Amino acid sequence: MKTTTFLTLLTLLSLPVMAQKKLFTINDLIPGGSTYYAHSYPATKYLAWWGDTCIELGIDQCQSTNTPIGAGDAVAALNTLTLKNINTILSANGRKTINHFYNASFPYAEKPYILIDRDREQTLIDWVNQQVVWKADLPIKAHNEDWNKNSQSTAYTIDHNLFVLTADGKTHQVSADGSTDLTYGESVHRDEFGISKGTYWNPDGTLLAFYKMDQSMVSKYPQVNITFPSDAQEGASRCAQLAPDPYPMAGETSHKVYVGIFNPQTDKTIYLNTGDPTDRYFTNIAWSPDGTRLYLIELNRDQNHGSLDEYDAQTGEKLRTLFTEDNDKYFEPVHPIQFLPWDNTKFIYQTRRDGYNHIYIYDVAGKLVKQLTTGKFEVMDVLGFNTKAKTIIYTSNEQNPLQKNVFSVNMKGKRTLLGNDTGWHNATLSESGKYFTDKYSSPLIPRNIDVVSTEDGTSTNLLSAADPWASYQVPEIKIGTIKAADGVTDLYYRLILPTDFDPNKKYPAVVYVYGGPHAHNIDATRNWGARGWDIWMAQQGYVMFCLDNRGSEHRGLDFEQATFRQLGVEEMKDQLKGVEFLKSLPYVDGDRLGVHGWSFGGFMTTSLMTTYPDVFKVGVAGGPVIDWHFYEVMYGERYMDTPQSNPEGYESTSLLNKAKNLKGRLMVIYGGNDPVCVPQHTLSFMRACIDANTYPDLFTYPGDGHNMTGTDRIHLHNVITRYFNDHLK
Amino acid sequence: MKTTTFLTLLTLLSLPVMAQKKLFTINDLIPGGSTYYAHSYPATKYLAWWGDTCIELGIDQCQSTNTPIGAGDAVAALNTLTLKNINTILSANGRKTINHFYNASFPYAEKPYILIDRDREQTLIDWVNQQVVWKADLPIKAHNEDWNKNSQSTAYTIDHNLFVLTADGKTHQVSADGSTDLTYGESVHRDEFGISKGTYWNPDGTLLAFYKMDQSMVSKYPQVNITFPSDAQEGASRCAQLAPDPYPMAGETSHKVYVGIFNPQTDKTIYLNTGDPTDRYFTNIAWSPDGTRLYLIELNRDQNHGSLDEYDAQTGEKLRTLFTEDNDKYFEPVHPIQFLPWDNTKFIYQTRRDGYNHIYIYDVAGKLVKQLTTGKFEVMDVLGFNTKAKTIIYTSNEQNPLQKNVFSVNMKGKRTLLGNDTGWHNATLSESGKYFTDKYSSPLIPRNIDVVSTEDGTSTNLLSAADPWASYQVPEIKIGTIKAADGVTDLYYRLILPTDFDPNKKYPAVVYVYGGPHAHNIDATRNWGARGWDIWMAQQGYVMFCLDNRGSEHRGLDFEQATFRQLGVEEMKDQLKGVEFLKSLPYVDGDRLGVHGWSFGGFMTTSLMTTYPDVFKVGVAGGPVIDWHFYEVMYGERYMDTPQSNPEGYESTSLLNKAKNLKGRLMVIYGGNDPVCVPQHTLSFMRACIDANTYPDLFTYPGDGHNMTGTDRIHLHNVITRYFNDHLK
Repeated sequence: MKTTTFLTLLTLLSLPVMAQKKLFTINDLIPGGSTYYAHSYPATKYLAWWGDTCIELGIDQCQSTNTPIGAGDAVAALNTLTLKNINTILSANGRKTINHFYNASFPYAEKPYILIDRDREQTLIDWVNQQVVWKADLPIKAHNEDWNKNSQSTAYTIDHNLFVLTADGKTHQVSADGSTDLTYGESVHRDEFGISKGTYWNPDGTLLAFYKMDQSMVSKYPQVNITFPSDAQEGASRCAQLAPDPYPMAGETSHKVYVGIFNPQTDKTIYLNTGDPTDRYFTNIAWSPDGTRLYLIELNRDQNHGSLDEYDAQTGEKLRTLFTEDNDKYFEPVHPIQFLPWDNTKFIYQTRRDGYNHIYIYDVAGKLVKQLTTGKFEVMDVLGFNTKAKTIIYTSNEQNPLQKNVFSVNMKGKRTLLGNDTGWHNATLSESGKYFTDKYSSPLIPRNIDVVSTEDGTSTNLLSAADPWASYQVPEIKIGTIKAADGVTDLYYRLILPTDFDPNKKYPAVVYVYGGPHAHNIDATRNWGARGWDIWMAQQGYVMFCLDNRGSEHRGLDFEQATFRQLGVEEMKDQLKGVEFLKSLPYVDGDRLGVHGWSFGGFMTTSLMTTYPDVFKVGVAGGPVIDWHFYEVMYGERYMDTPQSNPEGYESTSLLNKAKNLKGRLMVIYGGNDPVCVPQHTLSFMRACIDANTYPDLFTYPGDGHNMTGTDRIHLHNVITRYFNDHLK
Repeated sequence: MKTTTFLTLLTLLSLPVMAQKKLFTINDLIPGGSTYYAHSYPATKYLAWWGDTCIELGIDQCQSTNTPIGAGDAVAALNTLTLKNINTILSANGRKTINHFYNASFPYAEKPYILIDRDREQTLIDWVNQQVVWKADLPIKAHNEDWNKNSQSTAYTIDHNLFVLTADGKTHQVSADGSTDLTYGESVHRDEFGISKGTYWNPDGTLLAFYKMDQSMVSKYPQVNITFPSDAQEGASRCAQLAPDPYPMAGETSHKVYVGIFNPQTDKTIYLNTGDPTDRYFTNIAWSPDGTRLYLIELNRDQNHGSLDEYDAQTGEKLRTLFTEDNDKYFEPVHPIQFLPWDNTKFIYQTRRDGYNHIYIYDVAGKLVKQLTTGKFEVMDVLGFNTKAKTIIYTSNEQNPLQKNVFSVNMKGKRTLLGNDTGWHNATLSESGKYFTDKYSSPLIPRNIDVVSTEDGTSTNLLSAADPWASYQVPEIKIGTIKAADGVTDLYYRLILPTDFDPNKKYPAVVYVYGGPHAHNIDATRNWGARGWDIWMAQQGYVMFCLDNRGSEHRGLDFEQATFRQLGVEEMKDQLKGVEFLKSLPYVDGDRLGVHGWSFGGFMTTSLMTTYPDVFKVGVAGGPVIDWHFYEVMYGERYMDTPQSNPEGYESTSLLNKAKNLKGRLMVIYGGNDPVCVPQHTLSFMRACIDANTYPDLFTYPGDGHNMTGTDRIHLHNVITRYFNDHLK
């Protein structure tokens, strides 16, 4: 009774307020929209560490944050670190000026130096003495710049060749035969196994390890550029141009990767003596602290056997295999080893061998010293160390499967939560690891920024951003759990009610799905991770639903590996549990269910529409995998093995075989030049449907890749929304 | 009153009958449908001339038709011309047997020889003496076979190289360096200028003129094959394959064409000494009756100046230019000269120089002897000659702009209508030209076949096919004329009422449009040329309308050239006159107008939707031209000149510039490998609409070319129909 009265009162009070609240435009909600940043993006601060001093990077000046840290003359001199002063120095030295300090950094803890890097001009300025102390100019075509602060050398690539610019201003050309088929200094293995770059300086910046990849034996996917480039030469043909892209498909011939080490002092390159690199993955490169040895984790093509190997950086010879790791399904190393700053004989190794990703300490002989963390949670990332306290700072979801919090662990395995215990945290350690900046949000916190001590956990708040949606009609967003199709596992869902919700009405509902590994959709971020499009659809009168099925990330190895060799099958069973739940809601019209997803979610959408043709009336599948035969070797074979060893898995999950089942309205959308889920997926599905006399719809974004960005993303979501409005409303 | 009573009576009488009549399925109506031939295609006969004897080609036997012609022992022996006998002979000689005689021919008037040509095995059989008199085996990969009955030599191509198989069984390789870039013996100039093949035997088959085309300098359109071929080699990649197609775009570098002459007796090839072939068209190849000289019509790249040139077939030297022809807009020769059989010094030349295509007689010195036909009608085709009567047999639309009838004209210019004076006639002359087989239909005649004398016009009916739609509910199909936008010219329209028409209802209406040159839609064929899809849509409750605007064929040069340098502009104005008329009909709902067309009609559809965005609510554009910049040199520059010389014409007709105007629902459909209107058209339009924030829909048929055939055509028309049902109904 009391509750009711209270609610009624609230309703009466809030009604006039509600009436004044605004509705969203699509441009408010979707990245790329003209008002997205103004209306959806919480305020933020740009921060950088200078040693253990936290600097706020402003437009007109840099200043020490109002935190207990940072002192001394140089900090005091920060008041001279103004845009005007820096630009005066830049101009006087013939350098490009800057418009703000957002990209500046402070590489040397002990020196009042600010590094400005603009349009490939690097300038290190002593702001106390107001002078340039070092500078370097990279060619305008340089990419993949990798600067070492100790040697002040920069590695970079131009047209797939590798160069090094040393502090003396000398340019060293490491390779000359680079091409699309033969790359130097670029990421390899299609960015799998945690690889995101192709150069690795040793600590003092005297040796550069780099990847070389031979793709000449790999099939070229014939991408086509249909737009006449604005920089085309006079008289150039307007005819569409071929853009061949090496793309090894599952079970087919893959590329070969080599690891080189370049010494700028001798201008010599050696390659690790690995033997024939065919069907081998060289991943997770790390240097020994003294810079004389290189570590990598080698993985076989089947991805069920790995070894941590040590190589001599001078000779390239293999010194030893420290240990190996096997898994019945697949073994996926994504974290290079990290040496303990206080003990050069020990390092961190992360593995999910006990079912969850945890931190292990090994010695350089390859002997396990200790499993440092343990429990049914995932260590997400090791941020670094508090050298003095000898603690490791990391993030994990120990608090809650939906959260990501910062912890320290000492060498005895004692874990301590650092900072706010809710929400989802992105932290950056200071030089000594004594502090970290902690940017976080939670369902009720749009964005907070704290500076937190890794020693005593004390925290200073720098920002508590206002809710940018405070003046908008925001639909109700809830989460909860249901049981997976295995009857045991809890799965998290997010449910969004229509903006103008009336519990006595029946609404159409749309399931948004991803469902693949390495990703999740529901977490304890702002609004439980609700997407702008969810809100847009809620405003159009849809119930929006999302469920992280088995196979998605952060729930442990068994949860992920439940889908092995038959991607989509268990995932769909879980999604159908979500549908059961949706249909149980009195305000959901079970005859008007839709589904939408992109990439793996496009695969899921198309799978659901063709496997359970009576469940969903309307689907929109974006950039889908249609047949794992067409997906690349590294990701595809990890989860599906090869078509040769798992023919039944490939056949049973192929949507070409299920095209005949399509009954509802399904639109498939693809980026015209998608290099990830190549257009062959969508186009083969169209062909299969045509041959089977079924009727999908289609849209494409010519020139776009796997995802649409900028205004194309607005257009895309208008297309998706219109499709549901046309057929589901 | 009397009429009314009569109609009422009719209605009363016919109602019960009507009620019993069937509705069509889409498979009944569209070519490619499983029941199309059974339910929509009128009965026919397969006929062939043996001299002046008309033979009916059956399944089990061939027989003389019941006509006044054909006599003698050999004709009597036709009763031995059974499938059983012929297959016995074929088998005995190790040849493939046949299932019917439909493809047989009788090349020698004086001899009882039947030519069987199956799977590249040619066999000439004497059916009186029951023996093989000649045979030849072509390689299984042979294409473009061209047999000369006098020398019994066959020219053919394999992989763009030219070969000749002579009667002695010897294979002569004419070229060895053929490739996609360098073709021999294939059609050139993209089949424009009436060119449909690449080999031309002289009359006695001793010299072979052939086309050679160098396309190495032409842009390659990157077509992509996405389907894994069933004949792929073991271990071949499943990755999509590039299929580059030389495609010269308007204003860009074009191919170079050469004319060679091969002499199988000497194994020598000479090439016509034309000089540099850059930007020159060599068209309309013809031989002198004695086979020593070659004639061709050369055209400049601007296509406004042509010359009839004579070359020496032994030396390749040019002997003379007989005469030239110019036109302010464009000159388009499509008929090679034809020598009079009774006078080797004179030939027929066809030209539209007086505004309509007519027959002119020239002498070999290039002097005009006489314009033989004249009047405001078009000579469509010269079928040949009655050698004895010295008359020319031709078809024209002199009777009516919508008809095509057979005429003879004597050397004095006296024209005589031959055979039935209604409808649309396809005729084949006998050897001497004394008779022709006349297959025709008219709005009320599904298909008749007569044998007609070219001398006295007497006619014998061989077939009067029953109406295959007699048991179906066929909608009312009417034609009429309205004035073009110029206020003067009569334009023909076709109007189809909904099957279950009720004059008191309001119906949505769909305009079907082509509108380009070289084609028309309304003629005096069966059902006024109504398309199966028109009937299908009428049955769905649409009024179907079609108008042959200015620019379309068979109405004279001025009518066609009204569109010069601004394709689409005048055509759309005429179509809007059609819309005015449609809207004046009380049963048409002017707020629910749709438009559909393919190829040039796709261009028209998209042009109409984006130029007059408030007129049409829904459009479906298939295989459209979007920007004439992307269309090929030969056709494109004829009507549009080059982008360099007519930039304003190209800009003002470009639908990339009009993409921003789109308001209604427009679906664009293209063949994934369309070599005519390359995918760049549709994809560029999608990109332009995305950039302009407008919202077309899209579909594609991967692997298909410019048109969909077979079951794809059924699928296509279901897609088109659904789109109108979704958005216009």
